[in-house]
Amino acid sequence: MHHASDILFTLFIVFVAAQIGGEIAQRLKLPGVVGQIAAGCVIGPSLLGWITPEQTATGTPLDVLAEIGVVLLLFSVGLETRLEDLKKVGKVAFLVGVLGVLVPFGMGSVWAHGNGFDWDKSLFVAAAFVATSAGITARVLQELHVLQRVESKVILGAAVIDDILAMLLLGVVVSMQGGGGFNLSHLLMVLAGAVGFIAVVGLGGARVMRWNSSWLEKPMDPHSPLMIVLALCLGLAYLSTQFGLAAIIGAFLAGMIASETRQQHTLEKQTMPLLALLTPFFFVITGSKIDLHELASADALLMLAAVTAIAIISKLAGGWLGSLSLGKRSATIIGFGMVPRGEVGVVIASLGLAAGVFNNRIYAIIVAMSLLTAMVTPPVLAWLLKRTGSAEVVDQPRES
Amino acid sequence: MHHASDILFTLFIVFVAAQIGGEIAQRLKLPGVVGQIAAGCVIGPSLLGWITPEQTATGTPLDVLAEIGVVLLLFSVGLETRLEDLKKVGKVAFLVGVLGVLVPFGMGSVWAHGNGFDWDKSLFVAAAFVATSAGITARVLQELHVLQRVESKVILGAAVIDDILAMLLLGVVVSMQGGGGFNLSHLLMVLAGAVGFIAVVGLGGARVMRWNSSWLEKPMDPHSPLMIVLALCLGLAYLSTQFGLAAIIGAFLAGMIASETRQQHTLEKQTMPLLALLTPFFFVITGSKIDLHELASADALLMLAAVTAIAIISKLAGGWLGSLSLGKRSATIIGFGMVPRGEVGVVIASLGLAAGVFNNRIYAIIVAMSLLTAMVTPPVLAWLLKRTGSAEVVDQPRES
Repeated sequence: MHHASDILFTLFIVFVAAQIGGEIAQRLKLPGVVGQIAAGCVIGPSLLGWITPEQTATGTPLDVLAEIGVVLLLFSVGLETRLEDLKKVGKVAFLVGVLGVLVPFGMGSVWAHGNGFDWDKSLFVAAAFVATSAGITARVLQELHVLQRVESKVILGAAVIDDILAMLLLGVVVSMQGGGGFNLSHLLMVLAGAVGFIAVVGLGGARVMRWNSSWLEKPMDPHSPLMIVLALCLGLAYLSTQFGLAAIIGAFLAGMIASETRQQHTLEKQTMPLLALLTPFFFVITGSKIDLHELASADALLMLAAVTAIAIISKLAGGWLGSLSLGKRSATIIGFGMVPRGEVGVVIASLGLAAGVFNNRIYAIIVAMSLLTAMVTPPVLAWLLKRTGSAEVVDQPRES
Repeated sequence: MHHASDILFTLFIVFVAAQIGGEIAQRLKLPGVVGQIAAGCVIGPSLLGWITPEQTATGTPLDVLAEIGVVLLLFSVGLETRLEDLKKVGKVAFLVGVLGVLVPFGMGSVWAHGNGFDWDKSLFVAAAFVATSAGITARVLQELHVLQRVESKVILGAAVIDDILAMLLLGVVVSMQGGGGFNLSHLLMVLAGAVGFIAVVGLGGARVMRWNSSWLEKPMDPHSPLMIVLALCLGLAYLSTQFGLAAIIGAFLAGMIASETRQQHTLEKQTMPLLALLTPFFFVITGSKIDLHELASADALLMLAAVTAIAIISKLAGGWLGSLSLGKRSATIIGFGMVPRGEVGVVIASLGLAAGVFNNRIYAIIVAMSLLTAMVTPPVLAWLLKRTGSAEVVDQPRES
């Protein structure tokens, strides 16, 4: 009967820390998610030590809750995104995605080579500069109720492109570490698989739901539409990992499909309490991974500053160039929206550490950079969005 | 980026199995929870083996999700329970709780001694006959929308008493296994602590909330009432384990306190999607713990039948005697409502196995008995409740 009481205490601490952090941030006119990440940093190993790295390692309950949290978050963002709207911004999103990968990859590899890495290892380091973490930006856009703006659509579309390219790039640089080359035909098959998965699920699913969604109410459970789309969300999140994509891409697709149903409004309402309970785990645990001790030297801080500056500038430049056709203001918003690396950078850094490409210090710096970009983006993005006021929307904004 | 994909697959399987099982059960006019437990048995090690015991051991992600699921379930049951209503049935609930512990404990120890156990070990075996698992009954009462009936109030009140007594009893029998006696003054302190915790939290919390609950809306987050009561739920669930009680007792108290707020109706609505997502994990994982292989002999099945019969009859008799003042029909409902042992019996059996009191076979039988009582109760209870029609309610039923 003392069963699992320790984990209950941890859940309580994480949840309360998220609420306090979020509240403080909002009172300071910052997005709540900044406060939640900061709260994670405070209760994590850097300061209070109430959460240890062992408790948040891959496969632990906290990690799984965080994963479910970010999956549900992207699902709910998908629920507010219609396929038609994404199609309208398709070209711009594609350009933003491609340039937002190439520019950071180029600048990152040049920096790494300049800092003494061989070219093949430099490309691995550069891969950690690439992948955008859509979760943090998505949450800011949702908090500010601007998911219907054209910039938001471009960011979300570009995040999908970005994830495909980042996956391919990582595949290439990992295969190069063995000293061998990489297999182009294999790579093309992976690309075809990922693109095919997204196209079939996104286009096909949306069409089915638009055609008829009354079957969602056939089961006897009165909440069956919610249950079915949640099952879809978990299933597609898993499937997308099987195509080498992030789980959140599948969750986003599931939400986008569900947005075509006539139960969409009810589903949006019902998803809210799920986000309220579970997304705090994602943000607090992201924050808890910042280890300030590793960075407690002038040298390390300088390097971190350089790496973070390159990460921000390169992504901003890529996104900005890609979306310039929408005007400079929108391009700046989109460029900043792509900046957060979040947990994806952390995962790549872990792979690099395991492969012996990174030492502990570079690892700590890459992780800190990933999380710094996640911390810096929300307030800047909020400020930019508020400053530009009520910009052009793709469609009539719906109530949320 | 392949991060956590295995667990996503497992989550998907468990969630979908729960929906299919629940749907089949409801079409057969059985409570959905029976189908969810049966689905767990099907996908568990006994049949398909899609879920292994390693995946559901204490502290694993699935175990934690199941724990959160049952905690939220009892929280939502608390949300539909007012302290005033419980007070009205206090005496009967107390009698049901006490007799519902003493009769099974007595019959269980006599049976165990008759089957060759020493007296001190017999008392340990008997302890596994005692503790009612409120989760399963609570779910059935909720599904049938009868939480406002007087029988439901008695069952919930008695479940609290039951948990206190079971905890004390377990403390006694565990301390006796060392060969030493037990410490009466220590035991009285534990009792005082548990009773004090429940009284202070239940009475004090309800009074505070009834007096004023507008402070729940002070934070800037528009969903702050939900966030605060969820934090309260996790916090009290943890605290109750510190007083030796089950986590669900604290969660129930948190819900009962929240039922006094003027946001009660909104909270009830918002809790629904949380239950929809998380309680299936509890029921499927409970079902997955039934290992049919261990019981594949006539001997074992006979013993299981005897143990299960004693478990059901003794609990029914205790509950029935305790609530006879409400009439025979109500007493039968209450007696059956106390029958499920569920996960509490499993926990005690695990302790017995670890302490060397049980062998593998007795362990399997006790676990199977606990889960059989959990399987048998819902249909019987549903049938009894429907047969007696719209009985006396403690208060005007509220919409749910």
